[in-house]
Amino acid sequence: MTSQPFHGVLVPVLTPFTQSGEPDAGRFIAFCRWLLDQGAGGLSIFGTTSEANSMSGAERMALLDRLVEAGVPAQKLMPGAGACSMTEAATLAQHAVGHGCGGVLLLPPFYYKGVSDDGIFAFVSGVIDKVASPVLRVYLYHIPPVAQVGFSLDLVGRLIAAFPDTVVGLKDSSGDWSNTAALLERFPSFAIFPGSEVFLLDGLRKGAAGCITASGNVNVPGIRKVYENWQGPQADALHAEITSLRKALQAYPMVPALKRIVAHFHNDPDWAAVRPPLVPLDAAQSSALIADVAKLGFSLGERSRSMAA
Amino acid sequence: MTSQPFHGVLVPVLTPFTQSGEPDAGRFIAFCRWLLDQGAGGLSIFGTTSEANSMSGAERMALLDRLVEAGVPAQKLMPGAGACSMTEAATLAQHAVGHGCGGVLLLPPFYYKGVSDDGIFAFVSGVIDKVASPVLRVYLYHIPPVAQVGFSLDLVGRLIAAFPDTVVGLKDSSGDWSNTAALLERFPSFAIFPGSEVFLLDGLRKGAAGCITASGNVNVPGIRKVYENWQGPQADALHAEITSLRKALQAYPMVPALKRIVAHFHNDPDWAAVRPPLVPLDAAQSSALIADVAKLGFSLGERSRSMAA
Repeated sequence: MTSQPFHGVLVPVLTPFTQSGEPDAGRFIAFCRWLLDQGAGGLSIFGTTSEANSMSGAERMALLDRLVEAGVPAQKLMPGAGACSMTEAATLAQHAVGHGCGGVLLLPPFYYKGVSDDGIFAFVSGVIDKVASPVLRVYLYHIPPVAQVGFSLDLVGRLIAAFPDTVVGLKDSSGDWSNTAALLERFPSFAIFPGSEVFLLDGLRKGAAGCITASGNVNVPGIRKVYENWQGPQADALHAEITSLRKALQAYPMVPALKRIVAHFHNDPDWAAVRPPLVPLDAAQSSALIADVAKLGFSLGERSRSMAA
Repeated sequence: MTSQPFHGVLVPVLTPFTQSGEPDAGRFIAFCRWLLDQGAGGLSIFGTTSEANSMSGAERMALLDRLVEAGVPAQKLMPGAGACSMTEAATLAQHAVGHGCGGVLLLPPFYYKGVSDDGIFAFVSGVIDKVASPVLRVYLYHIPPVAQVGFSLDLVGRLIAAFPDTVVGLKDSSGDWSNTAALLERFPSFAIFPGSEVFLLDGLRKGAAGCITASGNVNVPGIRKVYENWQGPQADALHAEITSLRKALQAYPMVPALKRIVAHFHNDPDWAAVRPPLVPLDAAQSSALIADVAKLGFSLGERSRSMAA
């Protein structure tokens, strides 16, 4: 097993769009910088929360080019290289490696359903062969509620055995703690990131590397406190606090809700835009959401000033 | 409602791959010509049976370029333009329009699940706006067993109302006859193609335009006989015959099984190759399949000679 480039609170970064619907590189760069300033351990750009699959490969690569040119450290980046085709996934992964990114997050091929472990193994293996780089680090992205196709425990074991220096971790967005716990037990030196802070404390107690969570877009400092104090006496109280916010968010469609919060607290209404097939929250949902998070004493006020600066 | 460019037996064409896994333009062109010679009413290249989503957009466009350069009539082509992103779907559709293709088959965006009709409407509408061509003809591709996301009856109605000259038909691969029947009743001048010949006869009796079916890759002549004789006394007997073959095929994973049959009857073993995440049939499955179809008196022998010629 190789050394691990990522740990802590990783953020699957929201992608801002302009009023005409194009990816907004300026706002994206500023937001990525702000997240790192807030203490994010890495930026998992181009994940599900990022609406990555609502962008073409060319759009994703252009955004990454801009981010790296702007000086955001590539080693902190774990771009999603997911695609239904092995060829496109390999192109995206190769592009990330070319920029020196710390790793890539790789979805299984998600168009065909009910495919075999052998088929998914051949896909991942094909991507790795095509990239053909000793510095490639692959994090498997297990998100069956969305992708429907996932990485079984046996398949994870086969991939680690076949590519011990390349397949080095996994984001578990199954929402199923028993799956995360089984992964942690079976693969102790693998970097496992629960896909929600709800499982962060239990995960850390069993050896997780941190978490990669959508709520990181609005609450890196809170989640980081749990990561830093998980062995201390306040751990459970701190965890209860971040879980309340997460549960408030989960009452709404996650991506539009997070974008609405960013738009609100950063005083930047354009941030609320999403790309089809997602739709923005309506006015009533927006007000209810802002009221819900305010009730928890939550505000991005302080932090938005630092982003603008 | 505009005039309809397609009717009859349309084939979602299998895509051959070389031994190194690349799309094989030479075999593809020969196979497309052979299907048209056999009486296919159109070629729905780049659908689910074509492993289209296992190819990058660039690979699909390069194959279409080669096909049109080889003289296969573009008006007979209905390439799939499906993609999770509006931008990529628009690029693929625009490329097809540039070649003068008769139409495009458009999947709904299929990464996010549980999306709203409003979101899918915005996606289709965004694609049509980006292509911005009066000759674009869109056929909606409803295949919920694979895409999980689909076009509801209400959404189909909204799209026809908004784009009466552009959204002109639908392939229904729901496998649910009650859905096909409801579409045929509610949208009588819309070109509706059941996604399997199992529903061809019932479909034609209610006004379907034909069918777009995977089995067309190996049985255009049989299916065409039903299409041409649906009002005659032999219709039910002819239909029973094609249904037996379809049911034999359905006992196996469809794409690998069809490729195995083509490889066998065309004496061209390389045709059996599939791209991950699909896997080829193993030796036992292959023998059983060939025996099953032989039992039905089915042979591509005559036809394979005409393809080689």
